[in-house]
Amino acid sequence: MSSSQDPLVVFTPSGKRARVPAGTSVLEAARSMGVDLDSVCGGRGICSKCQVQPAFGDHSKHGITASEDALSGFNSVEERYDRVRGLKTGRRLGCQACIQGDIVLDVPPESQVHKQVVRKAATTRHIEMDPATRLYYIEVEPADMHAPTGDWERTQAALAEQWNITGATLTLAMLAKLQTALIAAEYKATVAIHTARDGAAQVIGVWAGFAEPALFGLAVDLGSTTIAAHLTNLVTGEVKASGGVMNPQIRFGEDLMSRVSYAMMNEGGAGEMTRAVREAMNTLAAELVAEADLTTADIYEAVFVMNPVMHHLLLGLDPTPLGQAPFALATNSAMDLPARTIGLTFADEAQVYILPLIAGHVGADAAAVALSEAPQKVDPLTLIVDVGTNAEIILGNTSRVLACSSPTGPAFEGAQISSGQRAAPGAIERVEIDAITKEPRFKVIGCDLWSTDPDFATQTAVSGVSGICGSGIIEAVAEMRMAGLVDANGLIGSAEATGAERLRASGRTYSYLLHDASAEGGAVIEVTQGDIRAIQLAKSALYAGARLLMDEFGADEVERVVLAGAFGAHISPKHAMVLGMIPDCPLEHVTSAGNAAGTGAQIALLNVTARREVEALVHEITKVETAIEPKFQEHFVAANAIPHATAPFSGLRAVVPLPDPDFNAGGGGGRPRRRARR
Amino acid sequence: MSSSQDPLVVFTPSGKRARVPAGTSVLEAARSMGVDLDSVCGGRGICSKCQVQPAFGDHSKHGITASEDALSGFNSVEERYDRVRGLKTGRRLGCQACIQGDIVLDVPPESQVHKQVVRKAATTRHIEMDPATRLYYIEVEPADMHAPTGDWERTQAALAEQWNITGATLTLAMLAKLQTALIAAEYKATVAIHTARDGAAQVIGVWAGFAEPALFGLAVDLGSTTIAAHLTNLVTGEVKASGGVMNPQIRFGEDLMSRVSYAMMNEGGAGEMTRAVREAMNTLAAELVAEADLTTADIYEAVFVMNPVMHHLLLGLDPTPLGQAPFALATNSAMDLPARTIGLTFADEAQVYILPLIAGHVGADAAAVALSEAPQKVDPLTLIVDVGTNAEIILGNTSRVLACSSPTGPAFEGAQISSGQRAAPGAIERVEIDAITKEPRFKVIGCDLWSTDPDFATQTAVSGVSGICGSGIIEAVAEMRMAGLVDANGLIGSAEATGAERLRASGRTYSYLLHDASAEGGAVIEVTQGDIRAIQLAKSALYAGARLLMDEFGADEVERVVLAGAFGAHISPKHAMVLGMIPDCPLEHVTSAGNAAGTGAQIALLNVTARREVEALVHEITKVETAIEPKFQEHFVAANAIPHATAPFSGLRAVVPLPDPDFNAGGGGGRPRRRARR
Repeated sequence: MSSSQDPLVVFTPSGKRARVPAGTSVLEAARSMGVDLDSVCGGRGICSKCQVQPAFGDHSKHGITASEDALSGFNSVEERYDRVRGLKTGRRLGCQACIQGDIVLDVPPESQVHKQVVRKAATTRHIEMDPATRLYYIEVEPADMHAPTGDWERTQAALAEQWNITGATLTLAMLAKLQTALIAAEYKATVAIHTARDGAAQVIGVWAGFAEPALFGLAVDLGSTTIAAHLTNLVTGEVKASGGVMNPQIRFGEDLMSRVSYAMMNEGGAGEMTRAVREAMNTLAAELVAEADLTTADIYEAVFVMNPVMHHLLLGLDPTPLGQAPFALATNSAMDLPARTIGLTFADEAQVYILPLIAGHVGADAAAVALSEAPQKVDPLTLIVDVGTNAEIILGNTSRVLACSSPTGPAFEGAQISSGQRAAPGAIERVEIDAITKEPRFKVIGCDLWSTDPDFATQTAVSGVSGICGSGIIEAVAEMRMAGLVDANGLIGSAEATGAERLRASGRTYSYLLHDASAEGGAVIEVTQGDIRAIQLAKSALYAGARLLMDEFGADEVERVVLAGAFGAHISPKHAMVLGMIPDCPLEHVTSAGNAAGTGAQIALLNVTARREVEALVHEITKVETAIEPKFQEHFVAANAIPHATAPFSGLRAVVPLPDPDFNAGGGGGRPRRRARR
Repeated sequence: MSSSQDPLVVFTPSGKRARVPAGTSVLEAARSMGVDLDSVCGGRGICSKCQVQPAFGDHSKHGITASEDALSGFNSVEERYDRVRGLKTGRRLGCQACIQGDIVLDVPPESQVHKQVVRKAATTRHIEMDPATRLYYIEVEPADMHAPTGDWERTQAALAEQWNITGATLTLAMLAKLQTALIAAEYKATVAIHTARDGAAQVIGVWAGFAEPALFGLAVDLGSTTIAAHLTNLVTGEVKASGGVMNPQIRFGEDLMSRVSYAMMNEGGAGEMTRAVREAMNTLAAELVAEADLTTADIYEAVFVMNPVMHHLLLGLDPTPLGQAPFALATNSAMDLPARTIGLTFADEAQVYILPLIAGHVGADAAAVALSEAPQKVDPLTLIVDVGTNAEIILGNTSRVLACSSPTGPAFEGAQISSGQRAAPGAIERVEIDAITKEPRFKVIGCDLWSTDPDFATQTAVSGVSGICGSGIIEAVAEMRMAGLVDANGLIGSAEATGAERLRASGRTYSYLLHDASAEGGAVIEVTQGDIRAIQLAKSALYAGARLLMDEFGADEVERVVLAGAFGAHISPKHAMVLGMIPDCPLEHVTSAGNAAGTGAQIALLNVTARREVEALVHEITKVETAIEPKFQEHFVAANAIPHATAPFSGLRAVVPLPDPDFNAGGGGGRPRRRARR
């Protein structure tokens, strides 16, 4: 009980204030007041996690004048700590310093358990530290012949008493380590404890005495093409290394469905792909830890986000049911797994968390996007599209969230495009076509200049201009449409009909010449009628999926559009909308979320509450299956036009020119047919 | 609700009776009345586990006249079952046959879940079947695109709905099997579910459709010298094969402490012993399944009982702390473990249950003895001794149970005895000495005749008379004491002092010649003064341990003595008591329990309630540590005399002659010193 005579304590930055009895330690005061002050050693003056910075003098804001003797002086424990390991000037150990008078105490970020970690992504993002794996220092009762209990049973008692952790388990191998550690350090040890979804606590690391071991986690975005991972300190939240490798499964099939086919047609094929991806994961992890001067044994946790096919292949499950209706998942729930059960050679007892899958085509990657973008927390109706070979589409707001996937095919990734290529130096990524002259200018990856700049040739001498990538083809087609070179049906006009010299006949259709370096032995890059058909197929599928969700939601328009995925970060919102990839929406409300799936993985790695959040959200999401929805086909056909056959896109038309020629004079391919799901 | 108009049903053998509405199936009636009637398929007419035998006609005992139409006729399901698989005459499927009138229904043993299984052991014993692993047939909802959930999530729903099993888990490997099985058999499957101590249910086997797979368990008594196991059907309780192998750790040290020393002195020595014992386990399992025409993949569970050193070595824990005070155990609790974590190559997900340890010297083998003998359930104060290199001693009754171990050393196993040998053909196992002539006769293992029988030589021609085993030396010394050839101090008299020609001088002491085949090139077998000293050391330790428990209990005598262990089965109670191995007690209350540890293992394998029982009992047992109890030394010294220096043994003296010569005439060794703990 505190009285009005007791010292008044204010903690910053939280601003929490209370009176506590004189002589209370700062750590005790913080705990009783609900102030977030860390401690690993349980107040024994060993870990120094509870450091605070007292602010003496006048604090008119808090109505406090803090005298120099408001805290007790150094006791022997703190003195020893300062002598041996050194305290920063002005800092005190919260577990040793006692409150004797009114005082303002600042808790520096590194002393907070739930510190905010800033992630550098497309959008700067704060993640609150609340990891599933934490370190605890314990002092265990020595063995006693008169009350014979095991080392483990006495350790459990210590965990319960000193940290309020009950029901912990451990493997035999960890028990053997614990046995050794306790004997080595007079029954004192530091343990890493992982808490799973079901609340089960497991000892996954043991060190003799008080220790501050390297404790790292890996957030993995396991894509069909690329595997990307961040190596993150599980104590500080600091990212120590990031990197990616190609998914080696590409040799079994470029896209997901060809990998499923490979598994279906080849005995043991799924197993081959499983081994390949696990090996690649271990290689990537080894590279990242090497970069950070660590070893893979320092990795105690990994979080994976991935689509359902990658999910099944990583886990060693049969992916073939995902190749046809009803697209049966082996499991759709979030999972906690020992890393070794999926062949990952991390710390012996490292744990893996797999985000839940939303549906047979909508994976944990989409769940991660939902976690990162949190549509369920905003009022404006938000459409999130993660564009890849399959597009994952999420629509929702505080009232409801829906999701589907749509088979866009690989055109947006530059595949099936005559001059298409992956996004790499030399690839055209931005295109402008002058409305009057119909002449293009472009930028290539690796150079900031426009192609019309005098220095462009010099600066791109190494890479050359090699092809056109996904964002490039989108801009090219949209620019052609705005310049009147392509009509609403997607037909390219002739030079005569448009006055553009660059339109050249090619059989019964026309192509637009973007770049011709044939004289120097370089590439000839053009946009063909076939390219436009491929883009139309892809964008129709994307739009139709979004539209289906809007129907289901009962909305005719969306208020925000978020472009997710690495690719989404490079798409120009204006061009995407001119193409009719996304529904009409004020352009300033179309934003890119960068690699939202990767961000979601990172959030789940560092914050266990976020894991529960995404599990609950996925459970609540309404799943819409495009493959069996008759209206999808209808929407797909209507979306074939650029931007759209029936939707007015009046918002868009108000800000960009969309001339309306009609080149349907016998040229052009037939009506695009819907592609098979890929 | 049933009314007095409803048919009256009586089930036998339980005798349960109730009225049930007409049309109720027999299975439903049994369940509502709490009658033990099995069903694996959940009443679908597939498994036939619910068969009953209706008894028509007059049942005056039950007040029922059952007409032929008291049960409904065969329906299509039952007809089909009878046609395809055949029903025994008079039998009905309980899930199909409906009650239409008063009836008496017999539940045959094979239709009972909790059937009693009769074990053949030294004492015939009934074990109620209540295994941790059981089979369940389930019908799972097919995958549905509109409500996408995984195969596993729908399986969990089926388990909850059809069998009331919630929160089940499974490994990734098992999930892959489940996925395949469900697709193969239209979402019908049979699963084996194991329930662990904490109530956690785990799928450890999956079969497509309805299946009756071989489901076996292994009950293992892992001794320092011998590993013995029973291969048991987990559905029927039938033992299909039993056998044993030598513990290959013997090459690292004969007794436990020499193995601990080996681990202490040799880097990696503990690991070598762990590998050796695990290999031996796999070999033994392979032999037993081969004998039963099964494979090791049919073994889904194993139960182990063993002393603490064997426990640590099997589990890969460091045994060296068990070599010295405070004899710290790494863990003392019962454990559920995947069999693969201890290197056992059984079914992929086979589970192991390890009985709890009582203390640093009192192992799971002693716990198994306690489970088998259940001293806590009887009123008479019962002393249970399991004699081996270490003797485990348990004392108790309904009020309280105490336990200790005592370092008897290997003398009782024939080691340290001049003509000692293991119990094997040719070893003297029984001895009688004529009180008048002082002439002996004996029996050897492998022959039922006494050595004085004319045919003895012929019948033992192959084995010869090769030495003396543990029970033989006990009888020999006791007989010498009763014949007046050995005094209360354990000194052997001379031929002159006793009139026995067979007493021969050997230095300053005397030996008793039991057998001399030297003329035929055979063995000379005698009992030397050193042999008697060795037996005195061993029996003093045993008695002192028992006496210490009696002190602790506050009792001066015991009402029952149970001799456990293979050795215990061969000891003659009278001779043991003449030696003073055990306290005075009416001879008819001294019984042998055979291999009580092995029986305990078998009980724990087949009955999960027994596991909870032994865990609770071990928790309640008062552990007494002989190594640090000063009174132990005192008791040890007093117990050196034969039968005892101070305890009167008046009960014994009333039934056997105990002459009191004193041969202390300068001969004989010094006072025996207490042996180091072995």
